[in-house]
Amino acid sequence: MEETFVPFRGIKNDLHGRLTCYKQDWTGGFRAGFRILAPTTYIFFASAIPVISFGEQLERNTEGALTAVQTLASTAICGIIHSIIGGQPLLILGVAEPTVLMYTFMYNFAKQRPELGHKLFLAWTGWVCVWTAALLFLLAILGACSIINRFTRVAGELFGLLIAMLFMQQAIRGLVDEFRIPARADSKLTEFSPSWRFANGMFALVLSFGLLLTGLKSRKARSWRYGAGWIRSLIADYGVPLMVLVWTAVSYAPAGSVPKGIPRRLFSPNPWSPGAYENWTVIKDMLDVPILFIFGAFVPATMIAVLYYFDHSVASQLAQQKEFNLRKPPSFHYDLLLLGFLTLLCGLLGIPPSNGVIPQSPMHTKSLATLKHQLLRNRLVETARESMRMNSSLGQLYGNMQEAYQQMQTPLIHQAPSDGLKELKESTVQLASSMGSIDAPVDDSVFDVEKEIDYLLPVEVKEQRVSNLLQSCMVGGCVAAMPFLKLIPTSVLWGYFAFMAIESLPGNQFWERILLLFTAPSRRFKVLEDYHATFVETVPFKTIATFTLFQTSYLLICFGLTWVPIAGLLFPLMIMLLVPVRQYILPKFFKGVHLQDLDAAEYEEAPAIPFNYPEEGEFGARSTTADAGEVLDEVITRSRGEIRRTCSSRVTSTSATPSRDGMNLQSPGLSLRAYSPRINELRVLHSPRSAAGREAFSPSGPSSLGKK
Amino acid sequence: MEETFVPFRGIKNDLHGRLTCYKQDWTGGFRAGFRILAPTTYIFFASAIPVISFGEQLERNTEGALTAVQTLASTAICGIIHSIIGGQPLLILGVAEPTVLMYTFMYNFAKQRPELGHKLFLAWTGWVCVWTAALLFLLAILGACSIINRFTRVAGELFGLLIAMLFMQQAIRGLVDEFRIPARADSKLTEFSPSWRFANGMFALVLSFGLLLTGLKSRKARSWRYGAGWIRSLIADYGVPLMVLVWTAVSYAPAGSVPKGIPRRLFSPNPWSPGAYENWTVIKDMLDVPILFIFGAFVPATMIAVLYYFDHSVASQLAQQKEFNLRKPPSFHYDLLLLGFLTLLCGLLGIPPSNGVIPQSPMHTKSLATLKHQLLRNRLVETARESMRMNSSLGQLYGNMQEAYQQMQTPLIHQAPSDGLKELKESTVQLASSMGSIDAPVDDSVFDVEKEIDYLLPVEVKEQRVSNLLQSCMVGGCVAAMPFLKLIPTSVLWGYFAFMAIESLPGNQFWERILLLFTAPSRRFKVLEDYHATFVETVPFKTIATFTLFQTSYLLICFGLTWVPIAGLLFPLMIMLLVPVRQYILPKFFKGVHLQDLDAAEYEEAPAIPFNYPEEGEFGARSTTADAGEVLDEVITRSRGEIRRTCSSRVTSTSATPSRDGMNLQSPGLSLRAYSPRINELRVLHSPRSAAGREAFSPSGPSSLGKK
Repeated sequence: MEETFVPFRGIKNDLHGRLTCYKQDWTGGFRAGFRILAPTTYIFFASAIPVISFGEQLERNTEGALTAVQTLASTAICGIIHSIIGGQPLLILGVAEPTVLMYTFMYNFAKQRPELGHKLFLAWTGWVCVWTAALLFLLAILGACSIINRFTRVAGELFGLLIAMLFMQQAIRGLVDEFRIPARADSKLTEFSPSWRFANGMFALVLSFGLLLTGLKSRKARSWRYGAGWIRSLIADYGVPLMVLVWTAVSYAPAGSVPKGIPRRLFSPNPWSPGAYENWTVIKDMLDVPILFIFGAFVPATMIAVLYYFDHSVASQLAQQKEFNLRKPPSFHYDLLLLGFLTLLCGLLGIPPSNGVIPQSPMHTKSLATLKHQLLRNRLVETARESMRMNSSLGQLYGNMQEAYQQMQTPLIHQAPSDGLKELKESTVQLASSMGSIDAPVDDSVFDVEKEIDYLLPVEVKEQRVSNLLQSCMVGGCVAAMPFLKLIPTSVLWGYFAFMAIESLPGNQFWERILLLFTAPSRRFKVLEDYHATFVETVPFKTIATFTLFQTSYLLICFGLTWVPIAGLLFPLMIMLLVPVRQYILPKFFKGVHLQDLDAAEYEEAPAIPFNYPEEGEFGARSTTADAGEVLDEVITRSRGEIRRTCSSRVTSTSATPSRDGMNLQSPGLSLRAYSPRINELRVLHSPRSAAGREAFSPSGPSSLGKK
Repeated sequence: MEETFVPFRGIKNDLHGRLTCYKQDWTGGFRAGFRILAPTTYIFFASAIPVISFGEQLERNTEGALTAVQTLASTAICGIIHSIIGGQPLLILGVAEPTVLMYTFMYNFAKQRPELGHKLFLAWTGWVCVWTAALLFLLAILGACSIINRFTRVAGELFGLLIAMLFMQQAIRGLVDEFRIPARADSKLTEFSPSWRFANGMFALVLSFGLLLTGLKSRKARSWRYGAGWIRSLIADYGVPLMVLVWTAVSYAPAGSVPKGIPRRLFSPNPWSPGAYENWTVIKDMLDVPILFIFGAFVPATMIAVLYYFDHSVASQLAQQKEFNLRKPPSFHYDLLLLGFLTLLCGLLGIPPSNGVIPQSPMHTKSLATLKHQLLRNRLVETARESMRMNSSLGQLYGNMQEAYQQMQTPLIHQAPSDGLKELKESTVQLASSMGSIDAPVDDSVFDVEKEIDYLLPVEVKEQRVSNLLQSCMVGGCVAAMPFLKLIPTSVLWGYFAFMAIESLPGNQFWERILLLFTAPSRRFKVLEDYHATFVETVPFKTIATFTLFQTSYLLICFGLTWVPIAGLLFPLMIMLLVPVRQYILPKFFKGVHLQDLDAAEYEEAPAIPFNYPEEGEFGARSTTADAGEVLDEVITRSRGEIRRTCSSRVTSTSATPSRDGMNLQSPGLSLRAYSPRINELRVLHSPRSAAGREAFSPSGPSSLGKK
């Protein structure tokens, strides 16, 4: 994205880009059939459960002025509108923790002013939303999102990890509170006697860890060894919702022998109980707010606007990371404009506004990648099986598969679509021809259909609007289903918070680098097998460690800041501060080429001369001691197409010098080997080919790139 | 073992065999140094914890006549004596569940007779032990153990699984009881109010599952990715004892806010409290027993003798399974004789006798195999590193390694010691020479020291007496440490019972076959990768399923029998009944060659003509469709030495026809690929070579054996 601050240009570009594929956004979604329900349900739970819990928090903090009904309504309304007329349909909207904190702060302020009080609180927040919306319009029109490319991985992933920490903190805090008497509760009830409180706490531990462990296990069902394939798929797709049901059922098991309040369950008024819908008519009261407070509302509005600008854009950015190989254009400017309208709408309705949420948005993209993988895989396996039944030769087989693959592509492809298949063809045909059987019919021993296809499919995302629309509608349905939701024990909620925190970690390179610090040196090569971590090879370990430690300290400072009462709201500013730090300070401490590998920034030009390539001389010197190794390495590299491993981030030290290795490094379709296993929980480890990944890490590894 | 019933011959042979290696039993143990503590501690816990729990059970059932002090004393005394003058030092002795059941039955009988009563109960059991000892002498002298080879895998593994089920049942029953008021307890105590009982039960769930999950996780520490190697080794070796400590500490965390009895803890008198040592002088009272009861004691004695004969022999047999490649001779006859003496001694001391226990005995052997593997591995890695530092060629490298390997062998080898290394040499030299670098110095890329050595080391067991002696002494120490043991919550005990049940499963082929029934057909080949399950290839799935279902029904009948009040004691007879069933009935329903593969019996001669080899004609017919597959298969089979995969049980349908495939199938040292991963928790999956295992399962797999 170019940095253009010409008014309206960004919005126009976004609209133009998204309109081109608008129809396909719907047709593609519907064509996926009932399978779209898997990511939909998955994201629905990830979206609804925190929103309900935030609603409860808000209810306690605002003395009932806002409840889970309002947070759910906001999430549903904003979600439905965004999924239909929004730019990026991968982005998930919801009422987020910062909004809750902000509203709590505003309530405490309003309560103390006799001019406002509990009565005019919502009317006043209406004005805050009006100002916020105005500021967001301004930011969108002036193209503030153009600097989004300065929000490099460092900032986005740090934010992602911070949110994960906050979710985990909420899980722990919730569990600890299960042992205590809740605020505003009648401490004389049986269930709050010391013994029942202890019993409740222990029961909560059982339920939350039960949900967490079984939830995590069920996500990996696809690679289980037991059970038929469709059962495993079903569990992997719907395991988490299922586990919420199972553990809720378990919570009723001892119902006969415990008081009614054990374990504690969700507490929210039904939407049809009196007083639960006072907020909807708040617009009538807005003119009752004293003029001083109408203008005073501008102060919190600036804070919220900054928060939303950052939150919304980063959530959108994390949902569109490069590894996902998205085919459709982004839409930062237009989405920010729409967010302005949504904020205005929510303000006038007296409900807290929604914005783009982490980790739900990247979780959404990941689940859609799994979906696309399943669809592609089924189609290709079918084609391959068909060809093999007809005794096709290898050549025919690949021809058929390429055709099928191309039929599955969206019309907006801007890359060679069949690179992945082509590569498979080359390496296997080479193998087969070395045995003189190139034209012989193929059978399972040459071409293991399921394995090869899994191994080869590029990461692609089913980009469409249906899943987002459906999940928003389901969130809306929750308002009506409130009596059922109240059956869920709060402890299951805490387990789910922990689950979400853990689910958001894989794929976060910052997190992977933290793990790398704790990895035994002899096992570091395994990182290469699992993730597509180019930097492990190209950047010295000491530099990785320093960089990661810096980032970790920064994270801890941000986390500490969230504990400071009011200033805590400004933690997004602290993260935005990372942008200039990354741009102006970090390059002073780290070599440019390393920085590029650890945190590719598009505005930076990669140094012309790669830093750690072995010179010809150096290579010559080594050859006396490492001859056999080099030869072996090269043989393996050639035959396995090892060159692919540099494709994960398009701007690495290697790909920045295309003249040196003239192969098609830039095509993102090739980075499949690294990502498909992670996203589909099918590990490359199980493939015989993982040997290549291993060998590439031998001391002579990088040189095999520089040579050719 | 030949079936000889000449009196004393078996005992003489055993004594002769074990005396030859008696000195080495001690020197070998001491030479292992402090590392011997790992298996020692592991087995000490596995031995002491059930014995303490059985002691508690006995105390309740005998109204305090026998307590954990007596069961611990018996286990320690018998263990020490057996480890010093016993035949097979791998065998672990202890007071087992059947003994507890038997003593409970005898107590109930004695209590009802005014002539005996509580007072003369122990004196009467003294007489029972005298008769039992006499019967065991008779059995040992007449060579009853000669028929031990009729106890095939089917019987032994069924017994092993039954014990695992009983352990698991005990764990579940214990946990359920945590929610109830214990028998003989004062139900008016605070801790038995409904709320505290529920709290106690929930806390018990947390503690027991905590121990179980962390215990299982810690056993796999060696393959963790994080942490330095020595930390991982430490956790793998001592993780379970450590976890018992950790969870005991956790149980004290809420001490301030719960009554003293929560969670429930072990309850046993200190050995120095009055009345706890009355039993030691029981020999004085033995002549007070009425003469009728002295002879009447013969009836329970026969039952106990049969039980011990079977239990002791099968425990010993399971500790010496063929896959362990033991080098030292067995000692069934002599050990049974010694068991007679130990029973006599225990009877006269008024303590319940010990016998060989499952699953502790096979667990002991497995942990010693891990120890030996560690020792060998460290030595070989060191040697290889040394050679590589000195720029040795491949030839020199292997020379050095073979030398080091041979130095580590016990003097009693009856096989070619270096088959494993030779094989490695051949395949790698072949690879290197194909690149023309056979004489070049070796580096990491040709020879990945740690991986290759792990992959190649045969399963060997550190056979010695030190670990058994030490663990017995530690069990004895428990008597003195009773005040500390009483800190352990009972729920941790239940978790440990479940842990032991689960730990005893891997390696049990019956269990693996049950799992196979639930494995998705497309993933059955994975069984080959993990276990050395020849039968998956050679026996049709339907036959495996039928056989396994038969065995499972039989298991369930045995399990049901244990629930029948008195007849339940006879469940060993039911298992012994399997011997004639296996010998005379099963061959009527299963093909001989399949039966051999599923349950090799040495007394059976393998059929002369293997059943499922493809005929030459059949192979010829296939070649039109599966040409490439065959060629590839053979290439892989040849170069990878795939022929090894048939070595797991020495008498399989393939190895029974050595003339057909003239290679060294019979040498047990070769079966390493299958077992070392399992025992050392290093999965072959991670090795690039696992490809061979996979491909061997292709439809054309078996033919590559039958050809040439």
